[in-house]
Amino acid sequence: MTDRLDAQIAFLSEADKLKSVLRASRLHDNSRFENSAEHSWHVMLYALVLADQAGPDVRIDRVLRMLLLHDIVEIDAGDNPIHGTVDHAAMEAQEKTAADRLFGLLPADLGAEFRALWDEFEAAESPDAVFAKSIDRVQTPIGNLANGGGSWVDYGVTFEQLDTRVGVPVRRGAPGLWAWLLPRLQGFFAK
Amino acid sequence: MTDRLDAQIAFLSEADKLKSVLRASRLHDNSRFENSAEHSWHVMLYALVLADQAGPDVRIDRVLRMLLLHDIVEIDAGDNPIHGTVDHAAMEAQEKTAADRLFGLLPADLGAEFRALWDEFEAAESPDAVFAKSIDRVQTPIGNLANGGGSWVDYGVTFEQLDTRVGVPVRRGAPGLWAWLLPRLQGFFAK
Repeated sequence: MTDRLDAQIAFLSEADKLKSVLRASRLHDNSRFENSAEHSWHVMLYALVLADQAGPDVRIDRVLRMLLLHDIVEIDAGDNPIHGTVDHAAMEAQEKTAADRLFGLLPADLGAEFRALWDEFEAAESPDAVFAKSIDRVQTPIGNLANGGGSWVDYGVTFEQLDTRVGVPVRRGAPGLWAWLLPRLQGFFAK
Repeated sequence: MTDRLDAQIAFLSEADKLKSVLRASRLHDNSRFENSAEHSWHVMLYALVLADQAGPDVRIDRVLRMLLLHDIVEIDAGDNPIHGTVDHAAMEAQEKTAADRLFGLLPADLGAEFRALWDEFEAAESPDAVFAKSIDRVQTPIGNLANGGGSWVDYGVTFEQLDTRVGVPVRRGAPGLWAWLLPRLQGFFAK
């Protein structure tokens, strides 16, 4: 039992490093960049508060678990901003290697359970994963609207790019949320 | 429906401020103080990874929801370090006023649901709340052991104080975790 606990605590200590992984997004008050640990907390709060935007097949508690784990691979692989230039195949390979190492720190049963949840999130096919992805995509635009553009300005993002990278997954997983967001995005990008 | 979504998003935007509430605890690498949003993420990960340390009556998904919400009142009330000098009655009153305002931003049904979960956590009586409290207490000591003492050094904490403030709730909610932690704490405080 002590070996098991040693492994569990070793994983939790390693996970502390997610607090030092910076994203391209900023806080609403524009004071600094957001890190991936506090982002993970915020998207979980989004999922719980906006649960009524999910389809009837979505189990929010599974969505919360997915979002709790979804960015842990960034400890090794770093954050890849969706508006940046990225080699998607290379990034995917990096993240899988990171998942092997990080979830591999855990006792085998827990490691397999977490890996299966992360794989399901990444595949974005199950109702839970589709909703989780839409929530993960919607948090940054709401922050950008609050702080004057944030990563859209930094990366010179057009409305068409935003529609592809954010609109597509959000319409798929949370269409009511997209209907709320769309006129606000159009207002920003019309300026 | 738009009024409802407006209120939901207003709450989520206000919640962003939890990322700017600093705690007395530091990151494992000692690089900076931890904020209450990333702390909330980390303790949820603790709860999920250490679920096998909970008693049979504990429902981990309810624990995760409690921990997701547990520090939101700090947006108004600030963080009160457990080793600091604090007027407990005044702090409790401040936190209740904060809960009134913050959960009051939400649509009434959600606000009542979240407030009930937060009240249950604060009361520390139900099996879910007792486990959630023990997990919330155990994260900082593990960080302090990693970073050379952290808030114990800053506040001149003795082993006896730690045993009262951390040992009592952790023995109550997660005795196996305390058994793992105790010799490590004794090793540190013997120095």
